[in-house]
Amino acid sequence: MNTNILNKDTICAIATPHGMGAIAVVRISGPAAIPIVTQLFTQNSKPFDKEKMVSNKAYYGHIVDHDELLDEVLVTFFKAPHSFTGEDSAEISVHGSVYVQQKLLQILIAHGCRMAEAGEFTRRAFVNRKFDLAQAEAIADLINSESEAAHRVAINQLKGGFSKELQVMRSKLLEMTSLMELELDFSEEDVEFADRSQLKALLQETLAHVDRLKDSFRLGNAIKNGIPVAIVGQTNTGKSTLLNALLGEDRAIVSDIAGTTRDTIEETLNINGILYRFIDTAGLRNTDETIEKIGIERSYKKISEANVVIGMLDATTGYESMLSSAQAIVAKVDLQHQQLILCINKVDTLDDQGETLLGALRLDLNNDDIIVICLSAKHGFGLNDLYNTLKLSQPLASPDATLVTNARHYEALMHASESLKSVQRGLEINIPTDLISQDLRQALYYLGSITGEITTDEILGTIFSRFCIGK
Amino acid sequence: MNTNILNKDTICAIATPHGMGAIAVVRISGPAAIPIVTQLFTQNSKPFDKEKMVSNKAYYGHIVDHDELLDEVLVTFFKAPHSFTGEDSAEISVHGSVYVQQKLLQILIAHGCRMAEAGEFTRRAFVNRKFDLAQAEAIADLINSESEAAHRVAINQLKGGFSKELQVMRSKLLEMTSLMELELDFSEEDVEFADRSQLKALLQETLAHVDRLKDSFRLGNAIKNGIPVAIVGQTNTGKSTLLNALLGEDRAIVSDIAGTTRDTIEETLNINGILYRFIDTAGLRNTDETIEKIGIERSYKKISEANVVIGMLDATTGYESMLSSAQAIVAKVDLQHQQLILCINKVDTLDDQGETLLGALRLDLNNDDIIVICLSAKHGFGLNDLYNTLKLSQPLASPDATLVTNARHYEALMHASESLKSVQRGLEINIPTDLISQDLRQALYYLGSITGEITTDEILGTIFSRFCIGK
Repeated sequence: MNTNILNKDTICAIATPHGMGAIAVVRISGPAAIPIVTQLFTQNSKPFDKEKMVSNKAYYGHIVDHDELLDEVLVTFFKAPHSFTGEDSAEISVHGSVYVQQKLLQILIAHGCRMAEAGEFTRRAFVNRKFDLAQAEAIADLINSESEAAHRVAINQLKGGFSKELQVMRSKLLEMTSLMELELDFSEEDVEFADRSQLKALLQETLAHVDRLKDSFRLGNAIKNGIPVAIVGQTNTGKSTLLNALLGEDRAIVSDIAGTTRDTIEETLNINGILYRFIDTAGLRNTDETIEKIGIERSYKKISEANVVIGMLDATTGYESMLSSAQAIVAKVDLQHQQLILCINKVDTLDDQGETLLGALRLDLNNDDIIVICLSAKHGFGLNDLYNTLKLSQPLASPDATLVTNARHYEALMHASESLKSVQRGLEINIPTDLISQDLRQALYYLGSITGEITTDEILGTIFSRFCIGK
Repeated sequence: MNTNILNKDTICAIATPHGMGAIAVVRISGPAAIPIVTQLFTQNSKPFDKEKMVSNKAYYGHIVDHDELLDEVLVTFFKAPHSFTGEDSAEISVHGSVYVQQKLLQILIAHGCRMAEAGEFTRRAFVNRKFDLAQAEAIADLINSESEAAHRVAINQLKGGFSKELQVMRSKLLEMTSLMELELDFSEEDVEFADRSQLKALLQETLAHVDRLKDSFRLGNAIKNGIPVAIVGQTNTGKSTLLNALLGEDRAIVSDIAGTTRDTIEETLNINGILYRFIDTAGLRNTDETIEKIGIERSYKKISEANVVIGMLDATTGYESMLSSAQAIVAKVDLQHQQLILCINKVDTLDDQGETLLGALRLDLNNDDIIVICLSAKHGFGLNDLYNTLKLSQPLASPDATLVTNARHYEALMHASESLKSVQRGLEINIPTDLISQDLRQALYYLGSITGEITTDEILGTIFSRFCIGK
């Protein structure tokens, strides 16, 4: 869609969640927003006095169409550029009847508005430079955030920290590129405006920064979509019981913000503000050793994406069996990138021998990276230990550290990193300045695509179509 | 709940529909509403300057709690009495993430608000005389309205037309009562301050008014909850096909405002802004005549509550069979209070004989109140005729006529009517003035209970508990 056409239209949409409520808000934005709304708006049975209209003020009155009263409303006008979109806008707060909401849209459309497309309000705000693309995407993330951690990442991105980091990198690279391209103009004279050693140091620094951002995606994505946790173990070790116990606790802990994630196949669980996503690894069978190993193998394939692995051991099978199960699990876990928590389950059957078994297991496994805890999933014993361990097992992002959570950004950073590495290699083997400059331009392009300094209508279309209507 | 305690608290709730949206609005009302919200509100990283606060103005800024940014928001303050509740209030418009909405409530509660009970905002508005009880109830009806007609009835009630009618009646009766009670003070002297013939005329007039309002409940209730329509007929006459055809059309016609009534057992259908409620009368069997009659009998019991009866006749069974079915149906319909529409279905099988059959049937039935139309439910032929007939068959309420839609009001009107009739009888047989006055007081009580001039905490509790939270 062409940006000019886009902004000539006056658009409208319900901005509040779907359905019935005490009130609902309909948003209108575009050149005709204020005339259209004032035309429908009356106060004390008289047409609203446009001349006295003050921006940002909430007016009480009636929406009347063809002499028929639709509703008592609050109308707030926002004069450009002091609005969310940067255009003339209005917000009409109506009674939250589904009929009233739909009817108001119909009336607005009859008076020259058109229905907003998904994300169109935010897109207009972006086009009018109210914020950059990364911040626009942060709004979508903010709305979708289901946990405190996801919310914090989104709000940091909305505040523009990430954008600023990118901007600083870009402006340094841009300066360097300009100097190199200046050399090209004087190429006959074989001068070097850009100090090569300084350029190398800058590259090193920028590349490290880009890679740090790129690598933060693993954590950022986990926070946004839930940290993947696999519960593994033979059947009858209590995996389902543990999951049920965790989910039971969850309902109690986060009853007030749950209810939005029930339609995924994987179970998600919000523990102390962090979302966990449990991966079903059922299917291990407790038969002879070979088959058991094949079962574990199959299960591990499934769980290779997990950040945390909970290995369930059955205390009633005896120490030797537990140890061999534990070793089989340990052998398959990437302890450098995955956190392993071994749970000696059913300790309630042990008559105080739990601690002894735990000590023995720790000694035999001989690895400080492996956490071993005692549990009775059935009786809820040890669940708090598990919660705390899960919490501690997360690489703690400092509250202000930038985390990349968006796959589009991750991809752009990956490309930028590759281009910068090309520049680095080029400088080492002294390839011609124009080739190096081309790679630098590539890196600049990718970094700029994140904040939308470089973008196309097609890219914008893809990004904003993922928003909800009314945003 | 005691009204005084009620109003000392500062309450908060999400006012917009549940779930995720572009924005959501949290409403705060009560003596501490403005201090609590200003304490959490910052602009340009500085605390909001309370001194410069202007009522009804939307301020852009941040909600910050314990140095942590929750969201970018718009805050509008409303100074008492210029608010919905009549108290100091604030509305915070946040991004519509479920997390942000819930977290904001938690923060507000931590700062001294409490969660509002269902309908508590409206109840406070009522207590602060922003509107009367009938108008408060109209707000709930408005929010619940699913059709244009239901919406119009609710908005008329909200405008206060009904309340004004009641007030006029009450003040006339009150004047009369005062005069009669003055007589009691001078009872020794046997004077008549209240002119008996004038009183009788007034009573006649008031009683007629009360009864008109009371009788409007049948239509008002039908408009609010859907006009009951029974589709009757033998099996294989095409009842289900007709219902499906109607519902299929419905989805096309009102797709944008449907989706809210799917959980009732009866099917409802919005045709041109009026809600119809179809009553299932399946169960007629096409066996020998006696049993068929029993079946019809049973079916009629079910449908005695219908305003409209659609009688389905099967054109393929031949004219004589159709006529006898039609007569059986006609015999059971109360044509004074119920509209009967006979449909000759399957006319597509008739090769242009439809009109002939229709003419014959009209002639044989010989009753202008019965509408006969030709139909092919299967092929959608004649559906528009049926829609138009349904529409015309409705007793047209003039747009400004007051309709009673609330069972509580209906009951109060019924009691008032009885009391007024007692007064009438009393005047006729010349019973003592104090007894007549007592009946008048009763009538006044019932009329006053509708608008809440006379009410109790218990009644208020019952009424407002049916509201949604946040209203």
